[in-house]
Amino acid sequence: MSEENTIFVGKKPTMNYVLAIVTQFNNADINRIAIKARGKAISKAVDIAEITKNKFVQSAHYESIKLDTEVLEGENGPSNVSSIEIILQK
Amino acid sequence: MSEENTIFVGKKPTMNYVLAIVTQFNNADINRIAIKARGKAISKAVDIAEITKNKFVQSAHYESIKLDTEVLEGENGPSNVSSIEIILQK
Repeated sequence: MSEENTIFVGKKPTMNYVLAIVTQFNNADINRIAIKARGKAISKAVDIAEITKNKFVQSAHYESIKLDTEVLEGENGPSNVSSIEIILQK
Repeated sequence: MSEENTIFVGKKPTMNYVLAIVTQFNNADINRIAIKARGKAISKAVDIAEITKNKFVQSAHYESIKLDTEVLEGENGPSNVSSIEIILQK
């Protein structure tokens, strides 16, 4: 059975996430990786996916790309933030 | 025949683009709108698509979401930039 791992994109440099994904794909049991991001990190998630696919794991393709809106509870009440989930399959 | 219009997301406020899309969807001949963005504007493009779909044009859905990498010729030579194309269909 193939496992699926998830990478949450935050404030680290882009290449840290790319390296984490490439490392996981080198594990024979991992065929699908979900890259998730919210708000301004969405642009970085797309960079990570494109760099991984074009430069390091050329056999990978996008299984699905989903956009959504999440409600975050903050100090000043709830606020909406956009999110992306990119499923990369080897 | 249905027309397709394209919105290029740049530095204007998010709601300017939402308003432009809602206005175009109110034109009976326009059923599909492509929202395109590059680099850091990708996050804003997702915000625009989600706000339009959730708050203003509830009948709309995502026909396709594509990620790509474009090569820009700059003063310091070519550089790669990620891009997104979100097709919103009424």
